[in-house]
Amino acid sequence: MTATETSRPPALWLRDNCPCADCRDPRNGQKLFQITDLPEGLAVGEVREDMPTADGRPGREVVWEPDGHRSVYPADWLAAHAPGAGGPPHPGDGRTEADKELWTAADLRGRLPEASWDAYIGDRRVREGTLESVSRLGFALLRGVPPRDRMVLDVARTFGFVRETNYGELFEVRVEADPNNLAFTRARITPHTDNPYRDPVPTLQLLHCLNNEARGGDSGLVDGFHAAALLRAQDPDAFAVLTRVPVEFAFADARTELRAHRPLIDVDGLGRVREIRFNNRSIGTLHQPAPVVEEFYAAYRRFAELLLRPALQLDFRLTPGDCLVFDNTRLLHARTAFAESGARHLQGAYADLDGLLSTLAVLRREGNRS
Amino acid sequence: MTATETSRPPALWLRDNCPCADCRDPRNGQKLFQITDLPEGLAVGEVREDMPTADGRPGREVVWEPDGHRSVYPADWLAAHAPGAGGPPHPGDGRTEADKELWTAADLRGRLPEASWDAYIGDRRVREGTLESVSRLGFALLRGVPPRDRMVLDVARTFGFVRETNYGELFEVRVEADPNNLAFTRARITPHTDNPYRDPVPTLQLLHCLNNEARGGDSGLVDGFHAAALLRAQDPDAFAVLTRVPVEFAFADARTELRAHRPLIDVDGLGRVREIRFNNRSIGTLHQPAPVVEEFYAAYRRFAELLLRPALQLDFRLTPGDCLVFDNTRLLHARTAFAESGARHLQGAYADLDGLLSTLAVLRREGNRS
Repeated sequence: MTATETSRPPALWLRDNCPCADCRDPRNGQKLFQITDLPEGLAVGEVREDMPTADGRPGREVVWEPDGHRSVYPADWLAAHAPGAGGPPHPGDGRTEADKELWTAADLRGRLPEASWDAYIGDRRVREGTLESVSRLGFALLRGVPPRDRMVLDVARTFGFVRETNYGELFEVRVEADPNNLAFTRARITPHTDNPYRDPVPTLQLLHCLNNEARGGDSGLVDGFHAAALLRAQDPDAFAVLTRVPVEFAFADARTELRAHRPLIDVDGLGRVREIRFNNRSIGTLHQPAPVVEEFYAAYRRFAELLLRPALQLDFRLTPGDCLVFDNTRLLHARTAFAESGARHLQGAYADLDGLLSTLAVLRREGNRS
Repeated sequence: MTATETSRPPALWLRDNCPCADCRDPRNGQKLFQITDLPEGLAVGEVREDMPTADGRPGREVVWEPDGHRSVYPADWLAAHAPGAGGPPHPGDGRTEADKELWTAADLRGRLPEASWDAYIGDRRVREGTLESVSRLGFALLRGVPPRDRMVLDVARTFGFVRETNYGELFEVRVEADPNNLAFTRARITPHTDNPYRDPVPTLQLLHCLNNEARGGDSGLVDGFHAAALLRAQDPDAFAVLTRVPVEFAFADARTELRAHRPLIDVDGLGRVREIRFNNRSIGTLHQPAPVVEEFYAAYRRFAELLLRPALQLDFRLTPGDCLVFDNTRLLHARTAFAESGARHLQGAYADLDGLLSTLAVLRREGNRS
């Protein structure tokens, strides 16, 4: 069997997917052998097209050479999964641009992905829709979340697990006397992703508004994947530079010293955008040969011009009880400056997409069963 | 100033690193401007070589055109950081193979990186050395850690933060009646990284031995970065395939459904190995065109043969009070099967390298000051 016989899947692939109880633990589906356990010169011997599976579904039996192992594959599984079988495209892992709906401010104005806290808690379809928005659009806004101290942690625990960091389990976004971060001042904060100096970066962020009486202090979100796609369309060389050059991000205070060297645009092995890092406050000094520095700065400026275009930024105002949940690998967030009079207090927390996407997958699975 | 004048750094780079109080917050070192705030046609105007910095160190002043901004750079900073300045190579972020010492079993036999818990707690140089071993070799072994329930969480908190997952804050590694994972049986577990179906993967793992009276149940560690480097040397095409093809890893039980599509060998933009995923139990079905499937399986088998070479695997036995701390993005861990009689009980926890590397950096900073 060779790659040119496209009607038959590659032998190692087929054998590696053998569903028998010797090959996969029936209790948990885990594979029980190593790829190196399979014999050299593995080949399909006899094939029986009309062999039912153990649970009586139509199946195909393969008797393997040289070891005589027998595998029975469900016919529908082969149709859906075999390379070149022409089935529907298999879904990705939900993390690259291929699985996202990219947006500009105009696309979402007047139709923010939002839900009331009561509906989110009480109705699993609302919960599924909210988490689906975070996955597809990069964010969702919960309204009417009790503006209580530490409530942001309870929100995170409805779908996943809090990622504790040097900022604590949660962090207070309010004016501080001796701020270790500009977030804790009244200053305007331009669009950025959080904690790019950390690897792994927190993949989700929650911001829960307890009080916002200040003049100013409005919020903004920018779809970094959209901006990256624009850059690729307009200037593929600049895009390529930003996927390639590791950039130092750094943060230090009395108890902490964090540093990560990551590209501004991270792509997967197939070139699809997976992660954006952009933070003018914590970008460090680039250590590369001068020609690389030159091309990096030209590309960085170009990307920044796109990210900071007003048309890309969705503006809204958080009011007490609002809790914003957003994908920190994709969206940039911003806030306007605010006046000295009037209090503004958010509580923030980090969490991770794996937990959220698992909760979403289980909700979908249960929905399909009911 | 152009890239060909290597004696002068690129203008945007130099201006972006301006240390003045208008450009960087003196309280926290955060940058106060966006790259897009800098004027078009930025160029170095007047240069004064003998201008001291605000704190009296030798410096160089640049007056910028067209905006007249003035920057004073410390001379030693320019010597160390300017592109092409020929200073010592700048350290990386500690995460790629460039910052590691790769090893085989023979390199470490009889010289395990280990420390007693009392010395680790009581002596900051021992603490620094232990964390440095985790960073450089990928692991360290703490001996005499009180074999108490949940103590593994206290160990993690000495250097960072626990990463809670669907397995809990900690997980019990012992025989269970209805295991959702083969780890919770008596079976042999071949070398693997944990949770490859999660993104971000837990970058650190801790295993604290409470009891190990069973015959068998010995531990093994393999340096995945070393195996990847061997593969690259022996078969660069196979290495390239494994860095490029996203592989599905999956885990599901009644409450969880996790999935990530990531390469077996993740490299950074400069081609340096950063992360290994290898887990025969949870590798899913590859969805790629047949020719890609063929070349992937050939490369996967080749890599597995290297990873599973006995010469690469460091074997040792955990006894009560031992706590192994290891880099789950680099090392594979394994255990032999164990007999029915005799109890074996480990408690495990996940954490992240960012916290550990920050703690190490602060210990070094304090050490340099004292």
